Amino acid sequence: MGSSLFENLTDADGHAHVVSISVFVAVLCLCIVIGHLLQENRWVNESITAILIGCIAATIILLWSKGRSSHILIFNEELFFIYLLPPIIFNAGFQVKKKQFFHNFLTIMLFGVVGVFVSSAIIAAGSWFLFPKIGFVGLQARDYIAIGTIFSATDTVCTLQVLHQDETPLLYSLVFGEGVVNDATSIVLFNTVKKLNVSRLKGWAAANVLKDFLYLFFISTALGVVAGLLTAYTLKALYFGRHSTDREIALMILMAYLSYMLSELLHLSGILTVFFCGIVMSHYAWHNVSENSRITTRHIFATLSFIAETFIFLYVGMDALDIEKWKMSKTSFGTSMGIYSTIILLILLGRAAFVFPLSALSNYMNSKTERVLITFKHQVIIWWAGLMRGAVSIALAFNQFTYSGVTWDPVYATMITYTVIVVLFSTLTNHTTGVWFPHKATNKSSASSPCNGQEPTPRTSTE
Amino acid sequence: MGSSLFENLTDADGHAHVVSISVFVAVLCLCIVIGHLLQENRWVNESITAILIGCIAATIILLWSKGRSSHILIFNEELFFIYLLPPIIFNAGFQVKKKQFFHNFLTIMLFGVVGVFVSSAIIAAGSWFLFPKIGFVGLQARDYIAIGTIFSATDTVCTLQVLHQDETPLLYSLVFGEGVVNDATSIVLFNTVKKLNVSRLKGWAAANVLKDFLYLFFISTALGVVAGLLTAYTLKALYFGRHSTDREIALMILMAYLSYMLSELLHLSGILTVFFCGIVMSHYAWHNVSENSRITTRHIFATLSFIAETFIFLYVGMDALDIEKWKMSKTSFGTSMGIYSTIILLILLGRAAFVFPLSALSNYMNSKTERVLITFKHQVIIWWAGLMRGAVSIALAFNQFTYSGVTWDPVYATMITYTVIVVLFSTLTNHTTGVWFPHKATNKSSASSPCNGQEPTPRTSTE
Repeated sequence: MGSSLFENLTDADGHAHVVSISVFVAVLCLCIVIGHLLQENRWVNESITAILIGCIAATIILLWSKGRSSHILIFNEELFFIYLLPPIIFNAGFQVKKKQFFHNFLTIMLFGVVGVFVSSAIIAAGSWFLFPKIGFVGLQARDYIAIGTIFSATDTVCTLQVLHQDETPLLYSLVFGEGVVNDATSIVLFNTVKKLNVSRLKGWAAANVLKDFLYLFFISTALGVVAGLLTAYTLKALYFGRHSTDREIALMILMAYLSYMLSELLHLSGILTVFFCGIVMSHYAWHNVSENSRITTRHIFATLSFIAETFIFLYVGMDALDIEKWKMSKTSFGTSMGIYSTIILLILLGRAAFVFPLSALSNYMNSKTERVLITFKHQVIIWWAGLMRGAVSIALAFNQFTYSGVTWDPVYATMITYTVIVVLFSTLTNHTTGVWFPHKATNKSSASSPCNGQEPTPRTSTE
Repeated sequence: MGSSLFENLTDADGHAHVVSISVFVAVLCLCIVIGHLLQENRWVNESITAILIGCIAATIILLWSKGRSSHILIFNEELFFIYLLPPIIFNAGFQVKKKQFFHNFLTIMLFGVVGVFVSSAIIAAGSWFLFPKIGFVGLQARDYIAIGTIFSATDTVCTLQVLHQDETPLLYSLVFGEGVVNDATSIVLFNTVKKLNVSRLKGWAAANVLKDFLYLFFISTALGVVAGLLTAYTLKALYFGRHSTDREIALMILMAYLSYMLSELLHLSGILTVFFCGIVMSHYAWHNVSENSRITTRHIFATLSFIAETFIFLYVGMDALDIEKWKMSKTSFGTSMGIYSTIILLILLGRAAFVFPLSALSNYMNSKTERVLITFKHQVIIWWAGLMRGAVSIALAFNQFTYSGVTWDPVYATMITYTVIVVLFSTLTNHTTGVWFPHKATNKSSASSPCNGQEPTPRTSTE
């Protein structure tokens, strides 16, 4: 009776694929509707809704499959880095307030680059020193350094939901800018460390890491800027708008994606490239397209980014109940609690160790100019808002501790579980405490539509 | 020095993946720019540009890899049916002129359903009778029936570029409507035939096929309509627009996709479901969203569809030079030419065998009403415009003659090559002769932006 083309794919895992995608898309729709219904509620936001729905879905799947699995999809690094991350980061660049961002460029770089180095070093050294004391052994020197970078990547996405661009422009641009640079630094650092021969670690290794980082930073940025300018020039020279809005939009999407892929292909940082490509495109290309294209691109990028984010949080929620990893992990409840506390303590400490000194340094540099200084209250907010760990941490942990999303080593399985729990915990705590922030607009959700606040007034509404 | 996260994926074919995607995206950008530059030219259009650029890219890759391969990507049925086809068909439904479509509903169904049955029977019987006579043997009864359905699926996409909705509304709606229904019928028929036990083929098998088809048609349509209405109701009930345009757009995209996947999951026809979902959404959901969402959704769907189409034609161009299949095929030049001529003759004949009689029937039915009749000139145009074979034919051929995109049987490899060549040939011939059509607007390309012609006037331009 049936007539699906997919039937023939069943043996090659094809039908399972269709089932997974259907369930995932259905749950995504549910997340959007529930997220909308709950948006007046100050205790939850879209990310937390997605995580909670993920947990519930995982429980249902767990019961359904009689305790065999809680997953619909196996975590796929490729899926994350090739399809989900680029739209999020590109949209971040596309919607960022450029003036504020470049105004605070030096401070952002201080936080985003030097900060990650400091924080990674503290977390790595701390865990290397403390983990064996609470009875968690089996990790190697390389793993400890990886843990340092994994837990130094802050979550840009969540942070944006705590602060608001219009009400606290300085704080917003600092925390947001740091988040993007910080993600890139963590990934670059993580990869450099992965290739490091730890046994022959010399004193000048740190200098080499820094040199690598600077090279990557400048080349990646340059690539993004060139891709953005090229798109702007093509759009202007050919004047697509006369005939086809869709062609313009397609070209912008494809060029942005191409810049990310090319950057990865050349072993650069795709995140940085696509972020700067977004900035340049919104500054130059955006003004060369037709009216309809302008409205569409703003929303198309925000929507894609929104779907990708929800997808990631949903996955994190599901992964928290991964029965396989819980079974495999052999550590006792006491040890687990000890490790959580240690990691969270180290994250708090690692962040404090750079936010306050670097703020002081930034204030000192800016004291001669007319710029606004970072007050102590703001420093505390920066410190606290950047404590969230998110999708990048998860992706790095999967990269380090699994092979294609699967691990059979109990110690490694434990580390994955810890990462997921820390991400969950930090997101939940941070968001719920965020409502007490003096600058937080509690009843306005601009997170899911970042363009609301800054969408350039369309010609039509000026009359 | 390098720091790409993909490096670790190299062994698992990950890096090759990044290279393929980069090259493909770059070539897609090139297609868009060149397609735009050539749009004043009446001899080529976007599809043909994509096919030609695909051929050129394949030649370069062939030389680069020293004759080993001409492919960047292996044809992936899953990629085609899960990711590329849904946006194209949904957009078709979303942009169709509903009034015309439903006005001619009966005629469209006659052409799309009865036509495919007639055409498939003629092509299957003809090839079964003629292929052995020109020395091409090795196919089984089941393969001949499959060939019948493969070459009965017309190409909706290309057809739209020959006719124009605003200038020839009747012809456009007939040919377009037929194309969609026809694709669905071919796929349903193909799958039914695949499961048929040919050795026990009885007379009432045809009746069974028809019963299956009717069941599928009504259930698939109902599912699409329900999904569309549910989305419209949700959007209206929750009034998303107040807070977030992106949430509205995300919900529309995800619900449309969900309807397709659910339909496939239930072994129905996803194409039909998503087509009717598109019609219902554009009629109901579209009016319940904010102004910005309206502009954005129109363009987002058209753009996604445009990218998917270009992608498919690019692939077809590349596949035409597949050295593997050419090497494997052991038929002589004379035999090959004989088979091409036979297939093309049978396609011409199969189509003529239903267009003219069914037009007469339709005219007879409509003669009592006030409706416009199909003149003989129009019948010829319908016959000729629907001769193109496209992406669906290719996908079905890969499904029948390969296992996961690879084949080692010389006869099957030959059939794949023939399908690709027939698609190329019919597209090229049909388009270039299309410029002589009396109703063809030669210098206006609305194909790449189907919304230009019928985009509901936005409130802003009424002042």
